[in-house]
Amino acid sequence: MKLPGQEEFEAPSASENVPAGQLDISLSTGPSPEGPSDTGSRELGVPKDPLLFIQLNELLGWPQALEWRETGRWVLFEEKLEMGAGRWSAPHVPTLVLPSLQKLRSLLAKGLILLDCPAQSLLELIEQVTRVESLSPELRGQLQALLLQRPQHYIQTTGTRRWWGSAHPRETSLDEKEQHQNPLRKKLPPGTEAGAVLAGELGFLSQPLGAFVRLRDPVVLGTLTEVPLPSRFFCLLLGPPVLGRGYHELGRAAAVLLSDLQFQRSARRVSNVHDLLTALDAFLKEATVLPPGRWDLTARIPPPKYLPSQHKRPLSQLRKVKDPSAPQGAPAEDRRGHGPPPPNPELLRTGRLFGGLVQDVRRKALWYPSDFLDALHPQCFSAILYIYLATVTNAITFGGLLGDATDGAQGVLENFLGTAVAGAAFCLLAGQPLTILSSTGPVLVFERLLFSFSRDYGLDYLPFRLWVGIWVSTFCLVLVATEASVLVRYFTRFTEEGFCALISLIFIYDAVGKMLSLAHAYPIQRPGPGLAGSIAYGCLCEFPGPGGNESQWTKTRLKDTDNILSMVRKVLGDFNSVLAILLGCGLDAFLGLATPKLMVPREFKPTLSGRNWLVSPFGANPWWLSLAAALPALLLSILIFMDQQITAVILNRTEYQLQKGAGFHLDLFCVAMLILLTSALGLPWYVSATVISLAHMDSLRRESKACAPGEHPPFLGIREQRLTGLVVFILTGVSIFLAPILKFIPMPVLYGIFLYMGVAALSSIQFTKRVQLLLMPAKHQPDLLLLRHVPLSRVHLFTAIQLACLGLLWTIKSTPAAIIFPLMLLGLVGVRKALEWIFSPQELLWLDQLMPEGERSIPEKGLEPEHSLSGSDSEDSDLMYQPKAPEINISVN
Amino acid sequence: MKLPGQEEFEAPSASENVPAGQLDISLSTGPSPEGPSDTGSRELGVPKDPLLFIQLNELLGWPQALEWRETGRWVLFEEKLEMGAGRWSAPHVPTLVLPSLQKLRSLLAKGLILLDCPAQSLLELIEQVTRVESLSPELRGQLQALLLQRPQHYIQTTGTRRWWGSAHPRETSLDEKEQHQNPLRKKLPPGTEAGAVLAGELGFLSQPLGAFVRLRDPVVLGTLTEVPLPSRFFCLLLGPPVLGRGYHELGRAAAVLLSDLQFQRSARRVSNVHDLLTALDAFLKEATVLPPGRWDLTARIPPPKYLPSQHKRPLSQLRKVKDPSAPQGAPAEDRRGHGPPPPNPELLRTGRLFGGLVQDVRRKALWYPSDFLDALHPQCFSAILYIYLATVTNAITFGGLLGDATDGAQGVLENFLGTAVAGAAFCLLAGQPLTILSSTGPVLVFERLLFSFSRDYGLDYLPFRLWVGIWVSTFCLVLVATEASVLVRYFTRFTEEGFCALISLIFIYDAVGKMLSLAHAYPIQRPGPGLAGSIAYGCLCEFPGPGGNESQWTKTRLKDTDNILSMVRKVLGDFNSVLAILLGCGLDAFLGLATPKLMVPREFKPTLSGRNWLVSPFGANPWWLSLAAALPALLLSILIFMDQQITAVILNRTEYQLQKGAGFHLDLFCVAMLILLTSALGLPWYVSATVISLAHMDSLRRESKACAPGEHPPFLGIREQRLTGLVVFILTGVSIFLAPILKFIPMPVLYGIFLYMGVAALSSIQFTKRVQLLLMPAKHQPDLLLLRHVPLSRVHLFTAIQLACLGLLWTIKSTPAAIIFPLMLLGLVGVRKALEWIFSPQELLWLDQLMPEGERSIPEKGLEPEHSLSGSDSEDSDLMYQPKAPEINISVN
Repeated sequence: MKLPGQEEFEAPSASENVPAGQLDISLSTGPSPEGPSDTGSRELGVPKDPLLFIQLNELLGWPQALEWRETGRWVLFEEKLEMGAGRWSAPHVPTLVLPSLQKLRSLLAKGLILLDCPAQSLLELIEQVTRVESLSPELRGQLQALLLQRPQHYIQTTGTRRWWGSAHPRETSLDEKEQHQNPLRKKLPPGTEAGAVLAGELGFLSQPLGAFVRLRDPVVLGTLTEVPLPSRFFCLLLGPPVLGRGYHELGRAAAVLLSDLQFQRSARRVSNVHDLLTALDAFLKEATVLPPGRWDLTARIPPPKYLPSQHKRPLSQLRKVKDPSAPQGAPAEDRRGHGPPPPNPELLRTGRLFGGLVQDVRRKALWYPSDFLDALHPQCFSAILYIYLATVTNAITFGGLLGDATDGAQGVLENFLGTAVAGAAFCLLAGQPLTILSSTGPVLVFERLLFSFSRDYGLDYLPFRLWVGIWVSTFCLVLVATEASVLVRYFTRFTEEGFCALISLIFIYDAVGKMLSLAHAYPIQRPGPGLAGSIAYGCLCEFPGPGGNESQWTKTRLKDTDNILSMVRKVLGDFNSVLAILLGCGLDAFLGLATPKLMVPREFKPTLSGRNWLVSPFGANPWWLSLAAALPALLLSILIFMDQQITAVILNRTEYQLQKGAGFHLDLFCVAMLILLTSALGLPWYVSATVISLAHMDSLRRESKACAPGEHPPFLGIREQRLTGLVVFILTGVSIFLAPILKFIPMPVLYGIFLYMGVAALSSIQFTKRVQLLLMPAKHQPDLLLLRHVPLSRVHLFTAIQLACLGLLWTIKSTPAAIIFPLMLLGLVGVRKALEWIFSPQELLWLDQLMPEGERSIPEKGLEPEHSLSGSDSEDSDLMYQPKAPEINISVN
Repeated sequence: MKLPGQEEFEAPSASENVPAGQLDISLSTGPSPEGPSDTGSRELGVPKDPLLFIQLNELLGWPQALEWRETGRWVLFEEKLEMGAGRWSAPHVPTLVLPSLQKLRSLLAKGLILLDCPAQSLLELIEQVTRVESLSPELRGQLQALLLQRPQHYIQTTGTRRWWGSAHPRETSLDEKEQHQNPLRKKLPPGTEAGAVLAGELGFLSQPLGAFVRLRDPVVLGTLTEVPLPSRFFCLLLGPPVLGRGYHELGRAAAVLLSDLQFQRSARRVSNVHDLLTALDAFLKEATVLPPGRWDLTARIPPPKYLPSQHKRPLSQLRKVKDPSAPQGAPAEDRRGHGPPPPNPELLRTGRLFGGLVQDVRRKALWYPSDFLDALHPQCFSAILYIYLATVTNAITFGGLLGDATDGAQGVLENFLGTAVAGAAFCLLAGQPLTILSSTGPVLVFERLLFSFSRDYGLDYLPFRLWVGIWVSTFCLVLVATEASVLVRYFTRFTEEGFCALISLIFIYDAVGKMLSLAHAYPIQRPGPGLAGSIAYGCLCEFPGPGGNESQWTKTRLKDTDNILSMVRKVLGDFNSVLAILLGCGLDAFLGLATPKLMVPREFKPTLSGRNWLVSPFGANPWWLSLAAALPALLLSILIFMDQQITAVILNRTEYQLQKGAGFHLDLFCVAMLILLTSALGLPWYVSATVISLAHMDSLRRESKACAPGEHPPFLGIREQRLTGLVVFILTGVSIFLAPILKFIPMPVLYGIFLYMGVAALSSIQFTKRVQLLLMPAKHQPDLLLLRHVPLSRVHLFTAIQLACLGLLWTIKSTPAAIIFPLMLLGLVGVRKALEWIFSPQELLWLDQLMPEGERSIPEKGLEPEHSLSGSDSEDSDLMYQPKAPEINISVN
């Protein structure tokens, strides 16, 4: 267990291909330029190299008013001082010209190289550095005095005025107090060292003077750097005036070189000039060259979202074509990058009855105390508020729709109560307590089908439903006992997206249908200006909904801004669905529209009048119906299994770096037991809700505050605990007393939200993008990696098959056989398997994912297909399994 | 006069800093690496170097099934064959690794260099190339046979299916017929030469074999290249198998090198290996280096919108800091790039009465016959249709509003008639016949003020208006006589944007106000679902309107797509306002709303009942009013002068490369005479309409069809003629008989369009962006060049002053003194002049433009302020006066 705040500077665990934010900047794990002996440092326990902050001080104002000025700084990316504008530029990828690097090399080759210099202060350092034969004592004195001058740093403030030619505003000589107050300091992790590059032109020098110093013990060199960090490297590049901005570029070249992790690693270890130059050459070897005149020089390349993994760099140079077996370690790793991710250890079959469940319970029991202690962090409060509001919105929305779907057999009150009871119990007992239980779209759709079936055949709904519930729990228990959850490995994107697309379409269709039927019930009044209530939901669907990409983007981007304006934006983004509801209700109330409102009972009693909380087991139904209920229960079990487990797979993805593991079997067990309970009480059924659970996890992200400018904040993991969920559901339970307020919510507002949910879920999946490709001329298609590797016709074929499946599912849903649609969903898994006869493994790798067995059957050459006969970039494939920011390509809540 | 199609391959005239599309790819004007002697080629008459198409053929399938395959091609940018996907990649900026360039250099240094090789066929060439000592006769034969093998080119078709490992689809041996049908051929201008790079690994070679051949006479080398172009260069890079994809990268390096214009120029002229290597070194010197591991290698850099000007490249290397007077030519050119553009020669004062007018007439008379002959091109038909629809929309919209503003004294019929008469006359006689006359926002606003004034004081409007018109023409004649048009040089962006912002705000305010007043007249019916007619215009304003950036972007991007889908999009984009009107009318009719409709007379007679077409000179007004009318006429003259001339300045911008010159004085004279005519007939007043005139010019752009992949189509100029405008206005006149249809247009639709116009115009100006900066935290501000060079506080101050001016103007407009607002607009010019006391010339250069006199008074060091004391990029400033795609930052129609 960790105390709050303590983990802010922890390093994330190394992973194959890490987002820029997750790059372990202090661990370079690959074979370094010095040789393969260094790979040992990959193991834990070896001290990591500290981060380096590089600063470039230039000698400006020549020849009258010489002064040192900071003009650039680097950690991972470059920031330039924009003197005219008086601000630091945004961090960007540095670009250099080749001659400056070459000149730097020759200057270092001839220059003074002090490795492990014992200097303890700037004075000592400068004395050592200026001990050059070519300097006369007089010049040396002059030079030393110059080097001891305090550099000018730019302190960023606003509200200053300046005239051209007069002194720059607020660029005062930096005293140490100011140095300590520098806001940059907070962004750098403790232990960060500095590297200072000093460059400039000096009239009295007759030849260039280059020096590179590695200090034995890093010391704070006065106010040399804008942040009071102990300096490790010191680089001096002086010379007589030359053409162009030679020394500016030379200084930048040195700074960029020093900011390279591989070079840093080498520079910390080399023992002579030769090795230092070898490291520089290694840098040059891997540098990318853009031909002149082919791109806009003023365009600054923004920091990429994902940095190439550091230890991959040298491998690209080493990989052999001729003898594929030669590099032993590399291809194995590479294949891991190419193939499907290995299955979770939780998903290995034990072979014993309830073996998985027992294992889950054992594993999670160990973490149980920490599941409460780990919640002691302020972040959990905001997570609770956020998830509470989302849960209540969900409960209201689904409750309203459920009442609609079951003709009042259930309602908002039941949904509040059920959500509270089931959610809290799940958070206390489940394997993955970060999951938020909720009514979900698929179950709602099934419930509607079940209700219309029972109405059509004149059955007593709730008792019938009780038996369905009993059977579902039984079937689910069987699934738990037989460890069926290991099958989730066969749910590929094809299945997930088919599932999601169907549910989304049903949502959209229903929302529009409901609105149109309202237009009949409450007709548009003519003549007169009135465009019907349909506008109301039309307006609502414009609001960004919960968990969409947009809001996530806003959140990540603004995370560390403590600005008021930005705060406002964040709040608007986080609570957009609440706002949408409030706005819709406000508009409805303001215009006094006669819309149908949410029906909420005034007292704490079941919505259906004349029933007890406990559902009678038979009611008006014949006894044999309790057996016949097994059939729909089988279908519902399939649905619940799929809905629950697809969400669980998404939540337990490796990119979330969960430490306490998943609990697929235990989760399903809990869901089964809760279904039994809620059926008996006549409450709705609950399974894991993807979007809201992801929002929960996202609100519990632990990110390092120490991130270099331009870098995404390093991701340290999720605050895994049971308390936030528990509190959320307790609060939800208390909210039952909101009933007097809830009755003002017009139904069209809820339809609007559901329309939005359907559209948002549909537009977030890759399937939709591929459907768009069907209509787009090749010229305008985006540069998707997928399209670089799979012929367009094959992509279209895959999309067409998916469309056909969807069409079939829709048709079945529209016939009297609708109730068997969960079975058809399961059929998607079979269709996906059959696709292996039509598509090559490579194509499926790009279009979907390989199924577990597929992996073994692919021949070696199949996995690296373009090696011997290819012109395409092998590095392309690195990005294939690139972890993304928690992007959701799956089902509606 | 040119025949249609003939000019498609003309070179555009050289300009300082050209958009990527306008780069003269065959003219490299700067000092080439060989020395300054080459600058002579800048003069016209020297034969231009042909364009080069570079193709990389790689030897693949080693060791079993050796074959040559095309894997990449270059003109300006790189296209890669994506074998897996079976398509050419989108053009992108090539990236290389440094070692491949170094290895290429050493291979060329040791290899065979044949300059001016006399070979006349592939066979001869190969015989010469393989005449290498190190090869045994047997190996030579083997190699020759291999080199004579036909290469495989990828013919892009769709609908093919492939399996991994089987033969690639449709990559057949290319016979010459197919070679001639290659669609790429049409994109390359006649005279294009080819350069072929052959690279690969050969088991039987013991050492690398490099050859570089420049053919004396370019010959078509069979099917070596996919397009049957005469080859000028041939580069062979073979060697024993090596680590990695060495020869692929080597081949790419050679191809990228050959695609560099400077290198091409040198390679065509060098006479020995040494000079060739010098040219390669010059390429390396200017190349940009990106450090390793700092950016995403799979990301392809899209072609930039603007290419750096070729002849600027070497200058950046040569520019001296120490002695600013040394490079004679360069700084002068540079200053031209930095300072404001020189005034049009048309704007130089002659000093004689009507001197400017006489000069204009003389100048334009010479072009008069060609003004009709130049219109003989199919493009003019589509221009007529497009501008006709825009003009009619405008006439309807402004006519409706005018009727509203003048309480029926004028109306749609008058506006149709007036537009037709005035427009046609202007097109026949004016100095700049590309101008489209129209009712404009400012004049409409003034007319409304004039009408309310005359109503408030019980005046007979039309006679009063006649006298105003008489005085306006008189004043305008005085302005023409005194050559006052030369003053337009003082209209900087500050003035233009102040003018635009005010008019836009008035539009928005009026549109919203009208709608709200409608809501009173036609109240929302409660209770019942009805959200009032206001929703109708709320919906309409979502449609993209005419002339916005969006539609322009769509148009340029789709210009050369002959796809049906894309056609549909273009039509939708071009006729969006017509569609918006139709949709609005359709919705109104469908819902049967009781909205107020456009009032159109049923017969061809003035809208105001009981008047003749000719306005009586006095009517019910006292005689002295004819003199008093001089006062409002003075104000209106100022307004018309500003509105007319700001538009004229924009239309005659240098980036449009107009050949026939402007006619500021003649235009104003025509406008004055037309105002006299329309006043006498009681028709609206007309001046040049910016947006629609720009659309007219844009629809007459001449672009070269020969553009390299990834390049913007080179801009060749505007089809300057009088016929399109003339036909448009004749058609507009005929459209008067549309009256029976026009009466179905609801007024809210027109308000919606005007609301949109106001919002679009407001959001297109830099002022609005700066206002947004006021609210934006520095961290989230975009990377504007402006912000790189001017302190944020200064930017804010400038914006605040503009806001204050706008506030003052708005206040005046709201008081009874509203009618003097044109005077206040003129005051903006004065305020702008006063700003020179507050802001430095540099700041004004970035925030606005320098005024003409200002130019002379700025000291030398002022113009290059950051030279000796700066860390910022001097190349940044290149982009400052970068010509943009006709972007409109000015007034509503």
